[in-house]
Amino acid sequence: MSKQKRFILAEDELPRQWYNIQADMENKPMPLLNPATREPVSVDDLSHIFATECARQELDMEHAWIDIPEEVQNRYRFYRSTPLVRAYALEEALGTPAHIYFKNESVNPLGSHKLNSAIPQCFYCHEEGVKNVTTETGAGQWGAALSYAAKTFGLECAVYQVKISMQQKPYRSSIMRTFGATVTGSPSMSTRAGKDIITADPNHPGSLGTAISEALELATTTPNCKYTLGSVMSHVSLHQTVIGLEAEKQMAMAGEYPDTVIACFGGGSNFSGLAFPFMRHQLKGQSDKGQSTKQIDFIAAEPASCPKLTKGKFEYDFGDSAGYTPLLPMFTLGHDFKPANIHAGGLRYHGAGVIVSQLLKDGFMRGMDIPQLESFDAGLLFARTEGIIPAPESCHAIAATIREAKRCKETGEEKVILFNLSGHGLIDMTAYDSFLNGDLVNPGWKE
Amino acid sequence: MSKQKRFILAEDELPRQWYNIQADMENKPMPLLNPATREPVSVDDLSHIFATECARQELDMEHAWIDIPEEVQNRYRFYRSTPLVRAYALEEALGTPAHIYFKNESVNPLGSHKLNSAIPQCFYCHEEGVKNVTTETGAGQWGAALSYAAKTFGLECAVYQVKISMQQKPYRSSIMRTFGATVTGSPSMSTRAGKDIITADPNHPGSLGTAISEALELATTTPNCKYTLGSVMSHVSLHQTVIGLEAEKQMAMAGEYPDTVIACFGGGSNFSGLAFPFMRHQLKGQSDKGQSTKQIDFIAAEPASCPKLTKGKFEYDFGDSAGYTPLLPMFTLGHDFKPANIHAGGLRYHGAGVIVSQLLKDGFMRGMDIPQLESFDAGLLFARTEGIIPAPESCHAIAATIREAKRCKETGEEKVILFNLSGHGLIDMTAYDSFLNGDLVNPGWKE
Repeated sequence: MSKQKRFILAEDELPRQWYNIQADMENKPMPLLNPATREPVSVDDLSHIFATECARQELDMEHAWIDIPEEVQNRYRFYRSTPLVRAYALEEALGTPAHIYFKNESVNPLGSHKLNSAIPQCFYCHEEGVKNVTTETGAGQWGAALSYAAKTFGLECAVYQVKISMQQKPYRSSIMRTFGATVTGSPSMSTRAGKDIITADPNHPGSLGTAISEALELATTTPNCKYTLGSVMSHVSLHQTVIGLEAEKQMAMAGEYPDTVIACFGGGSNFSGLAFPFMRHQLKGQSDKGQSTKQIDFIAAEPASCPKLTKGKFEYDFGDSAGYTPLLPMFTLGHDFKPANIHAGGLRYHGAGVIVSQLLKDGFMRGMDIPQLESFDAGLLFARTEGIIPAPESCHAIAATIREAKRCKETGEEKVILFNLSGHGLIDMTAYDSFLNGDLVNPGWKE
Repeated sequence: MSKQKRFILAEDELPRQWYNIQADMENKPMPLLNPATREPVSVDDLSHIFATECARQELDMEHAWIDIPEEVQNRYRFYRSTPLVRAYALEEALGTPAHIYFKNESVNPLGSHKLNSAIPQCFYCHEEGVKNVTTETGAGQWGAALSYAAKTFGLECAVYQVKISMQQKPYRSSIMRTFGATVTGSPSMSTRAGKDIITADPNHPGSLGTAISEALELATTTPNCKYTLGSVMSHVSLHQTVIGLEAEKQMAMAGEYPDTVIACFGGGSNFSGLAFPFMRHQLKGQSDKGQSTKQIDFIAAEPASCPKLTKGKFEYDFGDSAGYTPLLPMFTLGHDFKPANIHAGGLRYHGAGVIVSQLLKDGFMRGMDIPQLESFDAGLLFARTEGIIPAPESCHAIAATIREAKRCKETGEEKVILFNLSGHGLIDMTAYDSFLNGDLVNPGWKE
């Protein structure tokens, strides 16, 4: 019998708490500010927008462990644990001595990690008597996850989808509609923010920033309606830590511990989800666990055309185009940054979440820029070896993994690399078509 | 902690042998005949078309258990076991006392059960020195699986896809191309058979029958090339028995045994795969296992517009439109039957495999006709409860399951129903779009 390929946890081993890294950080993230008063925002301020419990989690600097509600655990059991997989076939194709593992969040029925936060956000809204939820979505992974989660909790759901992504991936709006959601392309004429954007630039392709503005406006002008977000915010990262908490146990099943942890990076949700549970040992001086004597190299793979981590500035900026959000202390390219029309729609965002921004500033992780063509080269090799067509976003993590694995080939190091396969690319086949036809380019980040 | 939802086998519990039901049947399937001589075909005859080992398996009436090659077991471990899932949310929505389980073959990276046979067929071809494989595909699930399997064994792959399905599901050809295959719409002008069909009917939408003719012609006129088939043949059913063998162990983990086993039906591969391992206890007089004192009701759910099991005749017929195949003893609507353009492309086939045809004749199972709209109603309810958008083919199994579960509600019986979720519908979103827009109809089966 060959060595084991997939590692799956029994249901009674699934995490019952999320990990809140803020509690363990020596340098806490700087506060979110009210743009008018420049005062730190309170739970009360945030709960006008988000479910109150999410607002509380957002600002919680004390509790390192937060209970996952029973009802959320039940929903997680629909698809968790996701498998940890040893990529033997990819290793062989690369001829690398590295051991490559990936956490396969693509087997989730909605096709990406986004469901991990959609479920608790809808749960809390439902608990608090909310009837409608709104959101933005780029590639549509978050919108699809939210549509399903909303349906299971009996909530109405309205999604603003980035216009260019809607055109690139028409099936994603169909998926959202199948789950009963209303989908509108952003920028649209249905909000004040959208009208302003279209007036200034009638051909604006949309961005996560424009869609957030529109969804926020709808949420704040509709009774009994809350806004939800699929990335960037600290409570979203919190919910995503089930990925890394599972992966840590699964790596132990495989008898290994990672030297390198890699995920693609848009606003930070899948990166945070995988990385934070491993990073906690390094934050705490590596004294609490024997296995954590290794210093892990944490790599966030971002598109070269939207390089907030490597080329952005750390400063207070808005999370959306119109300036409706609180001011966030983050690495940013500017809230009016217009990203190129790359197919990795989920990575077309100008800023990084506040926790990740602080960790990057403090040297706990690094960014790595991946050109679009390199990302699809990597995705194609992964598909043809491991059989899974990855999402264009996830292709960035694979490309970074391949870079590191090739370096191991040169040095002969048997490093253990763990990356997050955040989603599959079955709804992104037009992107693969364009790539196979030679129609894709490597856009820069400055016009 | 709530009751367990998903049941997954450890890798060392995966089946190491396939189950060959032919060996246990009292009434063996009648022989395949050479259409010219009306003599039974031999392994030698079949191995002109198929890999020799597949030809041998096709006609093996002796060995109930056939070893799965080590290399195939390794590839199976990429995605097997697939989960057995208790559909609590669907049960609740139906208010049924029935316990509903499904075997989730949709989490396979290619999205359907087809990979279970694509891997061994390509393995045997590779072992026997074959360099090229050809095939037909309807919805494209089989073509996608074969494209990937061929790539991993270094084989070139050419696929004839039913023209109407190619138009309905354009992403599936992109998937095949991503794995390096050549894809041609059938009927095409690239073969003699295709030219004849187009000459007779320039608007022919294609069918599995036309695509089989073209692929067979290519295989028999190309050096070092073998034909492969995704359904109908007995060796395909053999490979698919990993589904039922796993499910039997998983039902035991759940502490239950099915009263009813349901799968959708095109040529029979996913039905056979789930049903045969359970059926073996009934064939053998129920004496070999204590648990098998229950008589299982086996239901094959077919489209009302292509009702070979309930309205077909049992007779010798060709497997393809052009008459290239051996004569098969089967329930058939006639090899020139032109199925309506329903979205369940994988079920648009005129005949049933020879084993299933014999079992149906002998009363071990029954067919059930499902109208197209009922199938999508069922698929939508399933998506909105269990979170998985099912393939249009699988929707037929879900519709049959819902009929049985509703009957249990009337009678109060706590029946245990097990169905096969043969694939997901993410590449079929145009079908869901049409359904949601009210554009679908219930085609009949006679013009």
